[in-house]
Amino acid sequence: MPQPSLKEEIVEAALKVFHERGFNAAGVKDVTDAAGAPKGSFYNHFHSKERLGVAALDRYWQRTRTALDILKDEQIPPIARLRASFRTLGEGASRNFKLGCMLGNFSTELSDQSPQIREHLTGIFESWTRAIEACAAAAQRDGSMRQDIDAEVIAAFLVNSWEGAMLRAKVDRTGAAIQAFEEIVFNGLLVR
Amino acid sequence: MPQPSLKEEIVEAALKVFHERGFNAAGVKDVTDAAGAPKGSFYNHFHSKERLGVAALDRYWQRTRTALDILKDEQIPPIARLRASFRTLGEGASRNFKLGCMLGNFSTELSDQSPQIREHLTGIFESWTRAIEACAAAAQRDGSMRQDIDAEVIAAFLVNSWEGAMLRAKVDRTGAAIQAFEEIVFNGLLVR
Repeated sequence: MPQPSLKEEIVEAALKVFHERGFNAAGVKDVTDAAGAPKGSFYNHFHSKERLGVAALDRYWQRTRTALDILKDEQIPPIARLRASFRTLGEGASRNFKLGCMLGNFSTELSDQSPQIREHLTGIFESWTRAIEACAAAAQRDGSMRQDIDAEVIAAFLVNSWEGAMLRAKVDRTGAAIQAFEEIVFNGLLVR
Repeated sequence: MPQPSLKEEIVEAALKVFHERGFNAAGVKDVTDAAGAPKGSFYNHFHSKERLGVAALDRYWQRTRTALDILKDEQIPPIARLRASFRTLGEGASRNFKLGCMLGNFSTELSDQSPQIREHLTGIFESWTRAIEACAAAAQRDGSMRQDIDAEVIAAFLVNSWEGAMLRAKVDRTGAAIQAFEEIVFNGLLVR
């Protein structure tokens, strides 16, 4: 019977390897090597590399949930929540700009190649966008955010622009794109 | 001696194949097959698949130059130039949202894998950003764009946010992300 702990180790290794190298540039053997597992053990745990990609993506998103949880913390004013959430993501990114955001990386590389991964990306982007939308709507109600644009449109724009900033940070290997995002969103665009 | 026209056909085929399938998911043979060329002919023209990737990227950017040229057309008011430039890009994207922007696709997939491709991406993003910056600065001078944010920061933000919108359109296969970009940028954020 497969050991659950080995499966766990393979998912952890896949998250690291796919985030660093991309999905198509890394093979199953790269992942099992990184997990210290024999390649032959892989198919005891996963039907396909694609399923492993889904598991790694979901694990990445779980890891990112701290930033999502901040959005829901009603003890904090909504604008401060939004700012803290993106700041938490930015701090994570600044540990290694080369990695980029795994959501964005998988979006460009795999959304046409893998219906399963695309479906998971859609779900993740939707739940993230809804959490931001709730926060933006609260900020509009308390008067701290401009009210002439739908909270839904603002939320979609913020998620997408964040992904664009992370994409650019991956090329530039600096935080400039993330700083531009923060400056425009929180000192200009939305917050008055 | 290698025929220039065959080299041309390989670059054209590479642009199409790499844009549709990504760089790592497509092999040299996929490209030569698409070009109707024997695989063996490839290395008469290119030292490596990476060099072909650079050639395909540069060709993509040449194709996109119509949108860049609009930015420089001083017969048109600067805000109208900006809007028309992004609209031209959006019309191109709407022919097949699944493709995304090849700059963004290569950014996430290859900027860590290939120093050559990363260098070309940096140059392309810089020249695009500078053209937008000039336009934004002109719009600030004529009073049609808000003046409390540096034109340089605005330009970087617009380029990155556009890439984010294209990334999201690739997942969603709709124009919603591009519409949100247009609405926020031209009816809210920057244009008063």
